[in-house]
Amino acid sequence: MAFFSSLTPVFVAIVCVLIGVILKKTNREKEKRDTTSKPISRPWVDEDLRDGTDHHLEEEENDEEWQGLDENVAHVPFVAERYSEAEMIKRSRSFYELLSKRRSVRFLSDESVPREVIDNVIRAAGTSPSGAHTEPWTFVVVQDPDLKHKIREIVEEEEEINYKKRMGDRWVNDLKRLRTNWVKEYLDTAPYLILIFKQVYGRLPNGKKKTHYYNEISVSIACGMLLAALQNAGLYTVTTTPLNCGPQLRALLHRPVNEKLLLLLPVGYPKKDATVPALTRKPLEDIMVMM
Amino acid sequence: MAFFSSLTPVFVAIVCVLIGVILKKTNREKEKRDTTSKPISRPWVDEDLRDGTDHHLEEEENDEEWQGLDENVAHVPFVAERYSEAEMIKRSRSFYELLSKRRSVRFLSDESVPREVIDNVIRAAGTSPSGAHTEPWTFVVVQDPDLKHKIREIVEEEEEINYKKRMGDRWVNDLKRLRTNWVKEYLDTAPYLILIFKQVYGRLPNGKKKTHYYNEISVSIACGMLLAALQNAGLYTVTTTPLNCGPQLRALLHRPVNEKLLLLLPVGYPKKDATVPALTRKPLEDIMVMM
Repeated sequence: MAFFSSLTPVFVAIVCVLIGVILKKTNREKEKRDTTSKPISRPWVDEDLRDGTDHHLEEEENDEEWQGLDENVAHVPFVAERYSEAEMIKRSRSFYELLSKRRSVRFLSDESVPREVIDNVIRAAGTSPSGAHTEPWTFVVVQDPDLKHKIREIVEEEEEINYKKRMGDRWVNDLKRLRTNWVKEYLDTAPYLILIFKQVYGRLPNGKKKTHYYNEISVSIACGMLLAALQNAGLYTVTTTPLNCGPQLRALLHRPVNEKLLLLLPVGYPKKDATVPALTRKPLEDIMVMM
Repeated sequence: MAFFSSLTPVFVAIVCVLIGVILKKTNREKEKRDTTSKPISRPWVDEDLRDGTDHHLEEEENDEEWQGLDENVAHVPFVAERYSEAEMIKRSRSFYELLSKRRSVRFLSDESVPREVIDNVIRAAGTSPSGAHTEPWTFVVVQDPDLKHKIREIVEEEEEINYKKRMGDRWVNDLKRLRTNWVKEYLDTAPYLILIFKQVYGRLPNGKKKTHYYNEISVSIACGMLLAALQNAGLYTVTTTPLNCGPQLRALLHRPVNEKLLLLLPVGYPKKDATVPALTRKPLEDIMVMM
């Protein structure tokens, strides 16, 4: 009996440890299952192509229109513009040459820019294709100096925090050098700031949420067209993604909760003494594969 | 002594259970911490702007270059092209008019297209800005008929599964109508298929992974420029995101594991009898807000 009672605590301890191990393992397996089962329950969302909006899926009406849009819309004949092959080659070459002169410019002058040009470049961006033709974009154009300055304050404050945290002690002795990274004078000087918001969902006539699939890809494609349109018009910008500023800027500009900031483009003419980094682009053979 | 030894197992059991509870709680807290601490440990990645690649972060070298690129690169003076205001207005208007004629065309003829035009439109796309100038894109251009047909088989098989699963019984009596959605003849007939891959990470000289932040936004912007370049050259396409086909198409085209399919664009001329859905675009006042 003494032998038995002296063994009991050891036995109980072993059982408890085993139970602990089993509990932990089950928990880990549950987590694993939770992760791996996602693609199975939502087969129409390619894992490669999710854009951060699919976590809304469970709560919302599925977007029945995606690629099925045509079902309820009449089709009409399409007559395309046709150029000769020589013209096509010439046009494609000069378009490449035009775009190849584009550079991201951080030093923008305060010279005014005709409003009509801004209207036209945004019209051009609005011709972009979008998933299920949802056109999930809002272009907020800020020209009011006070509002531009408030935007600058928000962006610079966050940027300073970002830089200091990132760089830590490594650059602590080179504050001046760092400073050029978070001071963004162009937010005051550029005659226009274009803030591009993606609408991550919309509303159906019955008030239910309708997820905009591929909204980030769609709005980014529209921004590519916008950048091409700016370059074509002789206007310059720098493509920026203001870190951690999205919610504050959304509130400042009174945008609804279904809109998220994607990009901020200051737009204007380069300053007389503007500089750009001496970068080159990859040659065609490094970006294209012909099969 | 008997009293003591009969208490011991109970005592040990209680201790063990307590240890178990504490272990589990610690574990849960660790998980919670892992989740909530992410923004703190990676302050330069805006939660609104993550593009699905940031789960690689823990294993990889941080991308020190993001927005800090300028530090190690020489700066050179920038001289911009300058147009008169009248010219700017005229150029911006005709560019908008050009792009406004773009339509997604599913009915593409098998007429050949000069290879030089394809080179030039991809050169144009390659002028796009990208996070930290990583240029994280690969344009795979397929002209081989057998390869095009294999792509068609992969895409149609997945599309059929997608449609049947999505539609379920609702459309079971209208298979013919459904069929138009997953049969993609243009994958055979278009003289070129352009498959655009985003490089979600690269390699540093020391072999370590380097996450390409904003790679999806960057590559989508490049696709916007590509679509504008195609339209400018008189070529047509339909923007497609082949659902669930990414891994199969990547393997078929021998692309490395760091590349993920973003878009597939069949490129050519519209067929003589091509139709498009009778859609309109939102007017400027619905997409632009001036402040």
